[in-house]
Amino acid sequence: MARQPYLQINVNKHNAGRSLSMAQIVSAVKEQITLEHVAPGCRLPPVRVLAHQLGMSKTTIQLAYDELVAQGLLESTERVGLFVASDPKPVPVAPETLVVPPPCMALPATAPPAPARPPTEGMLNLGSVFIDPALLPHEKLSACFRSVVKQPQAYAAYHDQGFPPLRQAIAERLQARGIDASAEDIVITAGSQQALDLVCRVLKQKRIATENPAYSHGKALFEMNGLETLPLPLDPFCGIDPDVWERQLATSPALLYLTTNYHNPTGYSYTTSELQQILGWSQQYGFGILEDDWGADMLSFSEFRPCLRARGGSGVLYINAFTKKLLPSLRLGYIVGNPDVTPALVASKVASCLGLSTLMKAALFEFLDRGYYETHLKQLQAELDQRYENCLAALRDTMPEGVQWTTPGGGPSLWVELPAGVDRERLRDRLAQRHVTISLSDNAFFNQPHLNGFRLGYAMLSQDDMRRGIEILADTLRQEIARR
Amino acid sequence: MARQPYLQINVNKHNAGRSLSMAQIVSAVKEQITLEHVAPGCRLPPVRVLAHQLGMSKTTIQLAYDELVAQGLLESTERVGLFVASDPKPVPVAPETLVVPPPCMALPATAPPAPARPPTEGMLNLGSVFIDPALLPHEKLSACFRSVVKQPQAYAAYHDQGFPPLRQAIAERLQARGIDASAEDIVITAGSQQALDLVCRVLKQKRIATENPAYSHGKALFEMNGLETLPLPLDPFCGIDPDVWERQLATSPALLYLTTNYHNPTGYSYTTSELQQILGWSQQYGFGILEDDWGADMLSFSEFRPCLRARGGSGVLYINAFTKKLLPSLRLGYIVGNPDVTPALVASKVASCLGLSTLMKAALFEFLDRGYYETHLKQLQAELDQRYENCLAALRDTMPEGVQWTTPGGGPSLWVELPAGVDRERLRDRLAQRHVTISLSDNAFFNQPHLNGFRLGYAMLSQDDMRRGIEILADTLRQEIARR
Repeated sequence: MARQPYLQINVNKHNAGRSLSMAQIVSAVKEQITLEHVAPGCRLPPVRVLAHQLGMSKTTIQLAYDELVAQGLLESTERVGLFVASDPKPVPVAPETLVVPPPCMALPATAPPAPARPPTEGMLNLGSVFIDPALLPHEKLSACFRSVVKQPQAYAAYHDQGFPPLRQAIAERLQARGIDASAEDIVITAGSQQALDLVCRVLKQKRIATENPAYSHGKALFEMNGLETLPLPLDPFCGIDPDVWERQLATSPALLYLTTNYHNPTGYSYTTSELQQILGWSQQYGFGILEDDWGADMLSFSEFRPCLRARGGSGVLYINAFTKKLLPSLRLGYIVGNPDVTPALVASKVASCLGLSTLMKAALFEFLDRGYYETHLKQLQAELDQRYENCLAALRDTMPEGVQWTTPGGGPSLWVELPAGVDRERLRDRLAQRHVTISLSDNAFFNQPHLNGFRLGYAMLSQDDMRRGIEILADTLRQEIARR
Repeated sequence: MARQPYLQINVNKHNAGRSLSMAQIVSAVKEQITLEHVAPGCRLPPVRVLAHQLGMSKTTIQLAYDELVAQGLLESTERVGLFVASDPKPVPVAPETLVVPPPCMALPATAPPAPARPPTEGMLNLGSVFIDPALLPHEKLSACFRSVVKQPQAYAAYHDQGFPPLRQAIAERLQARGIDASAEDIVITAGSQQALDLVCRVLKQKRIATENPAYSHGKALFEMNGLETLPLPLDPFCGIDPDVWERQLATSPALLYLTTNYHNPTGYSYTTSELQQILGWSQQYGFGILEDDWGADMLSFSEFRPCLRARGGSGVLYINAFTKKLLPSLRLGYIVGNPDVTPALVASKVASCLGLSTLMKAALFEFLDRGYYETHLKQLQAELDQRYENCLAALRDTMPEGVQWTTPGGGPSLWVELPAGVDRERLRDRLAQRHVTISLSDNAFFNQPHLNGFRLGYAMLSQDDMRRGIEILADTLRQEIARR
């Protein structure tokens, strides 16, 4: 059983800080107990506690307590303590006054999906955008942590903007890709999600445009932050609809948020001319751009993906993260701002969490600094390329007539579009019975989905499992098509 | 120099997913270049990149490119690549279309203070609430990290609510103190600051009452989240002013946020009867309570501090953190809710950052599980007790007549109140010239400060440095008093 907390009394009302006489202690305790209607049975602070608090000798405190017992205000119980006697003004207080919790906002109608996990025992998950944990560099990360935990800098106070050597290393990586970025522009965040949150919080005008379907965690965040969101229809086969986009963007939202490459859930990458068109609208209608470039490092052949920050200058806010490519549980990402915006982002980060663990950032810096990240990306990409090609081959081999899919060429997923009349939800449920999971991404759409398909991830499953999953998908799909 | 990113083209408009013929590739590229007004000089995707993307042979792609060169749409530069030829419809686009960054909210008028750091070379910092890094258990933490980096669970996907074994360990610690808390109630956060943020975000009614002076990072956060804040005057010598408090609380804000013990910056701990009065008002006026109990573990003698959650039941939301006591750069704290509130807090955490690093949480669990935390707290507290007593002794020995200070008996700081007419800012500046720092906590007050003093931290400096700092403080203060 927990010990009863002692009665907290205020001894600073009189002669504060200076030594108190025994008589002053007696009258202070007396005042508290009688004037403040303290319930009988409350335990007094033990002698050594009060002596320590007041910086006085235990003898003086003991004498004061003895006097209070003599006056009948306190009762002593041998070896247990001193308690308020039951005589003086016994005002009963309920032992527990139940506090009503504050009313909370309703949860978002479509609660954000739980973070993806490794495939559940016996289930083939065709819906994940996460990378097979077997492909992630646990050993090398572990080596970096082992090295970093010995370094005093890992225990240094957190830096509000983020561990400076890490910001410098990130800036150099970006500069090598032709992106305008200095360590001073960069704020380290808990994944790209916190970066999105920081941006939302500093916007003066609470209107943001984004793809429909949207990155679902971003959409949930915008809703939670009370932003008005303008949906811009995206078709993974045909790209953007310039007329609808321009009409929405002409209303000058504060920001256009988009994922330049391997958009989630569609897998779409913007064409160079679409990017140019978007930059033009930005100038014409005066909206800012927030670019999520998470796909940049997920491409073979050491090629650079086109990116808006490189073409639009440092006015484009740029987000990226190490979460997917390195280790989901790292939860480290960053946002690149500019001298106008970064101070506000830092203030926003300070307000929302003060800072993040230095040790994690030091370990990530170590990983980059040793060159492990480049080696890892090369190995990872070689494996993902193989999985991608096998996935395409399996789809071509098995998919019934009328089914279409995109060929993103990188990233972790593509989009499969079903023939008209095939019920996606029925398909998902039938597949679940056969131990295959697909992700319909329903909460990524702003309204009735204009697509009739789903995201197919090829980064999570081994090649054999992927093949098996696609065969079951094709078989089930054939039955569903026949059923129409 | 960075290589030019290649032209991103959309090859999914026709016959999506299926193999394309050479002619189809030719016409797709042609369509993109001519219809979409691509600028001359753009680099085409290398053959191997496009072959990989489409899952086709390099030969087919090469043949298509050859055809496009023959038709004059592309130009080949030996060993560098293929580029859009300058003939067809050359629509010049600016090499860089500068995007205007979005307008951001103005920074808070009083920018939140930077996180405290170890004393700057040559400066004696009397203002810090952080604990001397020399007293923190670097070695033992390092041992836990070394052990945890070998465990696969540290690399498991993040858990939105927080690593379950850590939540269980925290719940057991709280239960031992008589606090109603289960692992299901608890959400792990990036320090107590993120816990505060999560609460702010889920409140339906955006009104919160808190102490004046307030915990300054909390105040900045409330302002950033657009909450209306009701200031409740707190005097570290006399406690709360019940009339003003009741008048404010009778307007039924959503929440009362308070720090039960060792309030920052005043160092005040609520008396038991004040806590009882607050619980009564909560019932009478129907507001919720958010208790920050960061001081709970900062007390000697294995005593429990009184706490609202223990007395008010699980309706009281309860925040605590390991930041100060264990390691500032850990950035791990938690909030204890209840079945009504916790799901909303989790949804809010998912929206704001998805989750936090599993590895950090696993290491902290290891630290608790090995019993290191209890041992550490005992050692830490013995040292802090010594520093506290020496600080009190130094103040009594040196402070001029008319200066008062509180005796909190624990925590990292006390409040020094100056005689009327002494200019705090002038004192701070004079002290800075003598290499002594004090913290006026001006941004903790909602309006003109009703106190004329400052926070004195005794946890950061060694006993010798503390004594030296207080002597300089007393000497400077004497001059300032004489000057009035």
